[in-house]
Amino acid sequence: MKVASIGLGLIGGSFALAIQEHFPDAAIWGIDQNQAHVEAALARKIIHHKGNINQLQNYDVVVLSIPVDAASELLPKILNQVQKNTLVMDMGSTKNDICTAVANHPKRNQFLALHPIAGTEFSGPKAAFPNLFTKAMMIVCEAEKTDENLKKKAYHILQEMQMQLHFMSPKEHDKHLAYVSHLSHVSSFMLGKTVLDLEKNEREIFNLAGSGFASTVRLAKSNPKTWTAIFKQNKTEVLTSLKEYQQHLKEFEKLLEANKFSELEQLLDSTSRIKEILAKK
Amino acid sequence: MKVASIGLGLIGGSFALAIQEHFPDAAIWGIDQNQAHVEAALARKIIHHKGNINQLQNYDVVVLSIPVDAASELLPKILNQVQKNTLVMDMGSTKNDICTAVANHPKRNQFLALHPIAGTEFSGPKAAFPNLFTKAMMIVCEAEKTDENLKKKAYHILQEMQMQLHFMSPKEHDKHLAYVSHLSHVSSFMLGKTVLDLEKNEREIFNLAGSGFASTVRLAKSNPKTWTAIFKQNKTEVLTSLKEYQQHLKEFEKLLEANKFSELEQLLDSTSRIKEILAKK
Repeated sequence: MKVASIGLGLIGGSFALAIQEHFPDAAIWGIDQNQAHVEAALARKIIHHKGNINQLQNYDVVVLSIPVDAASELLPKILNQVQKNTLVMDMGSTKNDICTAVANHPKRNQFLALHPIAGTEFSGPKAAFPNLFTKAMMIVCEAEKTDENLKKKAYHILQEMQMQLHFMSPKEHDKHLAYVSHLSHVSSFMLGKTVLDLEKNEREIFNLAGSGFASTVRLAKSNPKTWTAIFKQNKTEVLTSLKEYQQHLKEFEKLLEANKFSELEQLLDSTSRIKEILAKK
Repeated sequence: MKVASIGLGLIGGSFALAIQEHFPDAAIWGIDQNQAHVEAALARKIIHHKGNINQLQNYDVVVLSIPVDAASELLPKILNQVQKNTLVMDMGSTKNDICTAVANHPKRNQFLALHPIAGTEFSGPKAAFPNLFTKAMMIVCEAEKTDENLKKKAYHILQEMQMQLHFMSPKEHDKHLAYVSHLSHVSSFMLGKTVLDLEKNEREIFNLAGSGFASTVRLAKSNPKTWTAIFKQNKTEVLTSLKEYQQHLKEFEKLLEANKFSELEQLLDSTSRIKEILAKK
């Protein structure tokens, strides 16, 4: 199996490592705008060879793991080049824009839109590791638009990695992810910002931070470029979820300002189902 | 050493276990409004005997680890009862109200105001464990108001537990903790609320939640009663930090709405120092 991995960060790098682990005969060509990433990926044996973004004719599989705005732009150009038995998979965190970008492409049926629910707050090839996807959920969008044989090939790869496939439309995907992922990132980035602002005047504040603070701002370590692209592509849903979040914060604020402590306790208590839900994860 | 532990939850229970570990001769009497907690603490050998809140005359040390509103009310009554060599320590997450409550008490110098920067999102005696405080920071407020000999006794206990003492005024404490702890809890509770509200109509949403969501809403598992009391006692500082946080969320929202993506990326990037800060933790 000849594989081109476009984008050699946490996701692309980890996927390349996982392919090698489960398909020892696979040969992997790596492509990344950042040449330091290509060199690092070669050095870490994440890839076997350097690839070329303008020479994608002879691969069995092309995996695209780059910021979502760049992916929407690049995917049609990739499909233009590939031969008719090539499977092209995208790993981006938003799905509506990219599916729209190739909706009428003559080779639409060679493309499978994916989103692995897996990641860490770290980025770049040095953050890649082969088990990132093991037993993780893989969302598959518009599966009905992909050629049956190419889809079989894709599912075989994903099932070897023990991923759990979960099917939905791009719109559903983008709405749900706004709530359970994108909003958490907004919250974390802005919480970090709030405390950093105070810290300009109060040097010792971070000495006092416990594990709770670390947990809520962990996602603020995520890559700003990657996340700006996600917020851009999922603007409508992110704004909707953010407005709802702000309404709840305002509700909390009003109850506290008005000394309505029993209502405040009820409000906190109304989130207790989170315990059961997280316990299953 | 005869110790009365008032409040047998995560903090009080863990502190009792730590005392036993470092002072094998200590005998511990446990007191809690919740009789099931007293029984559970006896069964788990967190305490040796049941105590009585109206018989606090014969202890060397009284440790108070109950919700902060109840602590402010109870502490004067505790000081009224104790003999003159008894050390009374409070472990609450806010310090200004409790210090004010006993500012003019004739036995003020037998009290030491503490706050351990240690905890988990779990509560009750079943959540207690002996190493919760090992190497953790212990904030000491108004140390100058406590009798030298009783303070020596307290520091000896805390240093045996390898805690790092950190001194500040109650006002400083409450301001800083609003930012690095209380605000994180508001954020987490309301993020949980936002997603639970959506889930009423969209059942599968939690299947899609990854580790990032779990991390940002972890604190929503915290005890609503405990946290309502903290928000109540630290109302002014919590409201200030919450307003600043909401301003930053609004700034994010405006940039996204106006398609100002490079400014948005800069805003996210301005939080990158969080990486270094958390790396030291």
